[in-house]
Amino acid sequence: MGIAIGKAFVLPTWEWDIREERMDPSDLAKEFERLYDGIRSSKDEIVFLQSEIREMVGREESTIFDAHLAILDDPIFMSEIQGIIQRQYKAAEVAVKEAIDHFVTMFDLLDDEYMKERALDIKDVGNRLLKHLLGAPEIRLPEDTQPYILVAKELSPSQLVHLNPQNVLGIAMLQGGRTSHSAIMARALGIPLVVGLEGKLSEPIQTGDHVIVDGENGYVYVEPNEEIKHWYEERRKAYIREADELAKIKDLPAATLDGHTIQLASNISSTRELDIALGVGAESVGLFRTEFLYMDRSYAPSEIEQYTVYREVAETFPGQSVIIRTLDIGGDKPLDFLQLADEDNPFLGYRGIRICLDQTDIFKTQLRALLRASAYGKIKILLPMISSLEELYAAKDVLEQAKQELKQEEIAYDEDILIGMMIEIPAAAALADLFAEEVDFFSIGTNDLVQYTLAVDRMNEQIAHMYDPFHPAVLRLIRSTVLAAKKHGIMVGVCGEMAGDPRAVPLWVALQVDELSMSSRSIPRVKHAIRKSSFEDSHEKVERVFQCRRKAEVDELLGIEHGPEAVDNKPETAQN
Amino acid sequence: MGIAIGKAFVLPTWEWDIREERMDPSDLAKEFERLYDGIRSSKDEIVFLQSEIREMVGREESTIFDAHLAILDDPIFMSEIQGIIQRQYKAAEVAVKEAIDHFVTMFDLLDDEYMKERALDIKDVGNRLLKHLLGAPEIRLPEDTQPYILVAKELSPSQLVHLNPQNVLGIAMLQGGRTSHSAIMARALGIPLVVGLEGKLSEPIQTGDHVIVDGENGYVYVEPNEEIKHWYEERRKAYIREADELAKIKDLPAATLDGHTIQLASNISSTRELDIALGVGAESVGLFRTEFLYMDRSYAPSEIEQYTVYREVAETFPGQSVIIRTLDIGGDKPLDFLQLADEDNPFLGYRGIRICLDQTDIFKTQLRALLRASAYGKIKILLPMISSLEELYAAKDVLEQAKQELKQEEIAYDEDILIGMMIEIPAAAALADLFAEEVDFFSIGTNDLVQYTLAVDRMNEQIAHMYDPFHPAVLRLIRSTVLAAKKHGIMVGVCGEMAGDPRAVPLWVALQVDELSMSSRSIPRVKHAIRKSSFEDSHEKVERVFQCRRKAEVDELLGIEHGPEAVDNKPETAQN
Repeated sequence: MGIAIGKAFVLPTWEWDIREERMDPSDLAKEFERLYDGIRSSKDEIVFLQSEIREMVGREESTIFDAHLAILDDPIFMSEIQGIIQRQYKAAEVAVKEAIDHFVTMFDLLDDEYMKERALDIKDVGNRLLKHLLGAPEIRLPEDTQPYILVAKELSPSQLVHLNPQNVLGIAMLQGGRTSHSAIMARALGIPLVVGLEGKLSEPIQTGDHVIVDGENGYVYVEPNEEIKHWYEERRKAYIREADELAKIKDLPAATLDGHTIQLASNISSTRELDIALGVGAESVGLFRTEFLYMDRSYAPSEIEQYTVYREVAETFPGQSVIIRTLDIGGDKPLDFLQLADEDNPFLGYRGIRICLDQTDIFKTQLRALLRASAYGKIKILLPMISSLEELYAAKDVLEQAKQELKQEEIAYDEDILIGMMIEIPAAAALADLFAEEVDFFSIGTNDLVQYTLAVDRMNEQIAHMYDPFHPAVLRLIRSTVLAAKKHGIMVGVCGEMAGDPRAVPLWVALQVDELSMSSRSIPRVKHAIRKSSFEDSHEKVERVFQCRRKAEVDELLGIEHGPEAVDNKPETAQN
Repeated sequence: MGIAIGKAFVLPTWEWDIREERMDPSDLAKEFERLYDGIRSSKDEIVFLQSEIREMVGREESTIFDAHLAILDDPIFMSEIQGIIQRQYKAAEVAVKEAIDHFVTMFDLLDDEYMKERALDIKDVGNRLLKHLLGAPEIRLPEDTQPYILVAKELSPSQLVHLNPQNVLGIAMLQGGRTSHSAIMARALGIPLVVGLEGKLSEPIQTGDHVIVDGENGYVYVEPNEEIKHWYEERRKAYIREADELAKIKDLPAATLDGHTIQLASNISSTRELDIALGVGAESVGLFRTEFLYMDRSYAPSEIEQYTVYREVAETFPGQSVIIRTLDIGGDKPLDFLQLADEDNPFLGYRGIRICLDQTDIFKTQLRALLRASAYGKIKILLPMISSLEELYAAKDVLEQAKQELKQEEIAYDEDILIGMMIEIPAAAALADLFAEEVDFFSIGTNDLVQYTLAVDRMNEQIAHMYDPFHPAVLRLIRSTVLAAKKHGIMVGVCGEMAGDPRAVPLWVALQVDELSMSSRSIPRVKHAIRKSSFEDSHEKVERVFQCRRKAEVDELLGIEHGPEAVDNKPETAQN
């Protein structure tokens, strides 16, 4: 819920330890290698960060890193560093430090606001590079105390990833922006966080201070008065009440009042999310995104490694189908071991099945792993970004090869494994009747389908308001896809955010989709909405929706509100 | 046809004239202004260039300029230049020159291939900056001689734009790449060109030498032997024979053997292309792109300026409708006077009508100009990038305002002016039946429709092979759009490259589209194909096309061939 109340634990700061001695001239090549490695790792980290931020927060926030990448690509910056190593036999980290100091001084001399900001960029990226050259020091957090609010100057992503949400109630960070990797990570972990406190607190937070971290509004209260404490305690109670209410229906089916049932499944990206899915009553996994198995590593995951993961997913839901999507990456989400070119329009680019059908070794390894795991549960294979029958046939060919290989190797797999495709490209929706004859199930990926159908990149803040899953054209494509599936007797599910939107429930009930797959946290609310609805009412409402010419009429029928809600709940005495 | 045969005229080279004296300290601010102006102009030029290259040649070629832009944005490069001006009171051009020399030397010291290339980038962009600071010298070309092959070290775009294609048969350039702005310009002017000859000729070309420029294959022959001369003369004759053949039907209608007629119109971007359109027998203008009126200038064109242009277009085709599309720009094609943010996916971004509905002053000015011009001819207004009825209504509101204003100002316009929309976003095609009730005509923009429907950026070379106008999903959307138009009795035309593709003629004939608008040079061949076809045959063929499940079947029916043709016509004795 974004609010944490507890006692502070303040993390000590640390400094780099840079060796100043000259190196042996014979080590020059090795030192250049170290530098290049450090640059590569720094870039990888920034690119990864950027794509995550873009996805989770928005494009604008992610562009702050463009300047950082530019510096690491800057031949002038690099030639200065290389020059120091080459001519003065200094270690890479010393050269980096000296180059930073040199340019920062030069910029500061100009007495120009723009240049001062650039000096900050150079410092920032320089520190990242130093971190990769020297390794970030480990931090030790108390494990055996009461849960606490962690207060730190700055936490690196690799530090954050080891935090235990059971111990860390919230985080107050002196530096960093809302969009720092750490902030993103904290949000993903569900830990309330406020960043950039430096200079905003009347006095430093001490270990043991009573602290409230209001991550929703970006406030931190140190030793808050009773009124504030009371206000936040009440909010916390209300939150818990609603959660209790929803928890009651956790093990009940998602059935309408008149007895129509929809399977509710979780979208997950790693096995770590399986417990969360089970915890909210997910009946299965409707979309396992396999991208994260491939990211942030210098070689593709092996068949065995993947098999182990897929098997774990399948075995977590015995008797239930789990839908695993094959690798769906692209130029905006690069892999270290796949050199993908920058693209002008990555969403209209080389991605998903397009890459897999070129890189059939990677693809076949994944299919083999999926097949092997299918011996231990009801795995269904989902192909992303299919836009033509040719692609589908080509993908099935590779699957057939994988099957034949396993057969010859006498390795068990589910011979009746079902294969489905994402309906996310308009062409796939337009040809749904043809595709329905060729696959076992559809999964409608509303996020991309909306994007392509409306030609709106929803990460683009200038037009984000145009991204509208309830646009009549999108609704028509969804309907015709579902009808095609029904006509051919194949299963049809919906993944994408629209599946987790309670306002879309009448649509799914009326169209009688078989499955909704969504982020686990959306399941309770969607189930609640389904259980309050009836097929009859939904059908009637949706019939009227399909008569609508204008978005406003659709919105009114489905109760979709627009415009920001008035939010002003900051108590008078807020310190930050 | 890309081949020029004639005598050489060699252009003398020139050098920068850089003043070395120190300036007065009081001029410091002025000098910084000069520097910033120069940087801005250089960037504008590069960005403009990039977008043109991207559109005309492809994305990959355009990325060579990313490094140039990066240098102009490089705070280190800039702080060096600023430092020299500020501390040594040197003129901006001297500072630029010294900074270039400094960094180039620094890079060269590293003895690293990558750094040497970067040094070239710095030299290149530095020269561009110097050009903007000092102005490129004028060149004088002989006007009163026989037409000649122009030989030059390098021609800047501003030099090229003044060339008279009547005098310049072809161009042989020592420097520059296939993708230099100059190369692009030359292609647009229809002048055969070969670039990058430096170091590839056994001896320099002299004024008066006999030269063949084979721009199609990138060969230049100096004093060619009889065999080569003969070979090229034959090719030229064959080209002229075909042109003569097509010229014979120039004034005949584009009617099928069984009497179905399609209006053939030109896509143009400026009034300079009107003569070309008339020359090939275009019956009207089916798409006047107004973007070029807005580009490369620091303020929007005035109502009067636009009115004059639109009126000229209308009056060139008396009695015929001319379709003028309102401003269709976006982040990938920036305007100097509109600050558009960089976008991750500009094709799915802030563009076309989306911008116009935000910038209603610019939009209304254009609509007023169009209305005023409509008093002098049959102008139809075409709205780009419409994806919802809301947008259409909003655009019509602005049009209504413009009409009311003119009425009050007692300025004449065509009260029955027709308004139409591009069908280029899948949503528009999916809702064509609804849109057909609200507009007077459709123009199917196949280029974008294919891109969005298939999620394929055709400028992206990795997936360009997937860009397929004959994809069954695209054909379905085209058909349903045409049927919706027919059902509601509105005119439907096709613009986009597919309209100019003779292989698509059966489709247009069978669907009975009213108009095909294409680049003027395509008109003769398309007319030829229409005149050889019949509705009956086309109808039958296209019925079969719509039964096709696979692209390969469509291709076979329509005679679409794939794979590169074997081209190897370089005579043995070629010098380059």
